[in-house]
Amino acid sequence: MKGTLYLIPSPLGENDLAEVLPDAVLERARSIGTFVVEEVRTARRYLSKAGLRGHIDELRFFTLNEHTPPGEVEELLGLFDEGDVGLISEAGLPAVADPGAQLVALCHSRDIRVVPLVGPSSLMLALMASGLNGQSFAFCGYLPAKPEERRKAIRAAEKRSAELSQTQIFIETPYRNDAFLKDLAEVCRPSTKITMAADITLPSETIATKTAAQWRKALPTVGKRPCVFLILA
Amino acid sequence: MKGTLYLIPSPLGENDLAEVLPDAVLERARSIGTFVVEEVRTARRYLSKAGLRGHIDELRFFTLNEHTPPGEVEELLGLFDEGDVGLISEAGLPAVADPGAQLVALCHSRDIRVVPLVGPSSLMLALMASGLNGQSFAFCGYLPAKPEERRKAIRAAEKRSAELSQTQIFIETPYRNDAFLKDLAEVCRPSTKITMAADITLPSETIATKTAAQWRKALPTVGKRPCVFLILA
Repeated sequence: MKGTLYLIPSPLGENDLAEVLPDAVLERARSIGTFVVEEVRTARRYLSKAGLRGHIDELRFFTLNEHTPPGEVEELLGLFDEGDVGLISEAGLPAVADPGAQLVALCHSRDIRVVPLVGPSSLMLALMASGLNGQSFAFCGYLPAKPEERRKAIRAAEKRSAELSQTQIFIETPYRNDAFLKDLAEVCRPSTKITMAADITLPSETIATKTAAQWRKALPTVGKRPCVFLILA
Repeated sequence: MKGTLYLIPSPLGENDLAEVLPDAVLERARSIGTFVVEEVRTARRYLSKAGLRGHIDELRFFTLNEHTPPGEVEELLGLFDEGDVGLISEAGLPAVADPGAQLVALCHSRDIRVVPLVGPSSLMLALMASGLNGQSFAFCGYLPAKPEERRKAIRAAEKRSAELSQTQIFIETPYRNDAFLKDLAEVCRPSTKITMAADITLPSETIATKTAAQWRKALPTVGKRPCVFLILA
């Protein structure tokens, strides 16, 4: 009998775990001894907060991040012969915008059970709170960093949004947040709706939806806070 | 001082609330007296389970579903003069695949604060557990019901998936689940990956990712269980 892969979400920042994680998810995390994590330090801090303080030294951690060679991901499959494994990403849902999906894919190919657990998704929380179209949406991840290419990618996303009535969702490296919001407001048509959702689930949470024309008139400073951007043409 | 709109997720089925909702979310739900809901009966049952039993008769419920005329949605804004309002959909996250987004959009235009709370998203849970690309994905909602149009829509989605390396996510009316999975397996290229995720978060949860060629060889019966489908070309 092989172990199960539990996908364990983590908080999006320094908040009380009871605000963003169901009791049963924390209980599940406490029942596991082997973890595959994006960064060991963050995962240890989270699990300690989740009630594993005192047992932290008995846990086994394996790293899976963008530097992990594919061969090493395959080796992780051996862990399931010994029992259940928990997958934890840097923040939020594992195996979405991180390399954990590679391990999930391998588990499917070996008939290892994969169980996703409930937790905070900055993308879905931003989408819910945006008021934009949730019946059709696309997550585009990061756009190119070079200004001219980025503006071109924004135009292409706005075109897809108009053609498919599809909300387009982006994230940006925090230090480029302000340049990105400025680009969105300047490149998009005046009537296109733009949402910025910063510090989701934290006390400093700010979520606003305005048209490009309205944003242009009064562009706020987002700063280096984690932020999700959405547009609907 | 206007009230706040709290977006309150609900369970995806008959499970223990502690498995899918953080304590603080249930506590927030218990602090609110006015709710805008997709269906009053389901919302009452949920809130009763969440600890509002005994107070249920003191709560006010307003319905917002696909039959609500736009003018009536606007009238709901008057509720915020009296205090906080909770928005609850039939299952899962409100204001994503239901008409609640209209109320959220109106709140933004009147500077009413919108706070999204953490809960189960069948789409994200299916995506996490699929092992498919989570760095780029699109939710396409329901495809057309007529077989020929549906097959055409599947082909178009597979094309977009190949062009943009974008996972495509669909839902289907439960009684068409089996016909839909059959169509996906037959229409998609043999190497395209297809995930079916049924009864997410429930004890009967089934999640599997295989290629179209593999599904064709052994097509399971999904039945009338709530199911999310994903493809990646």
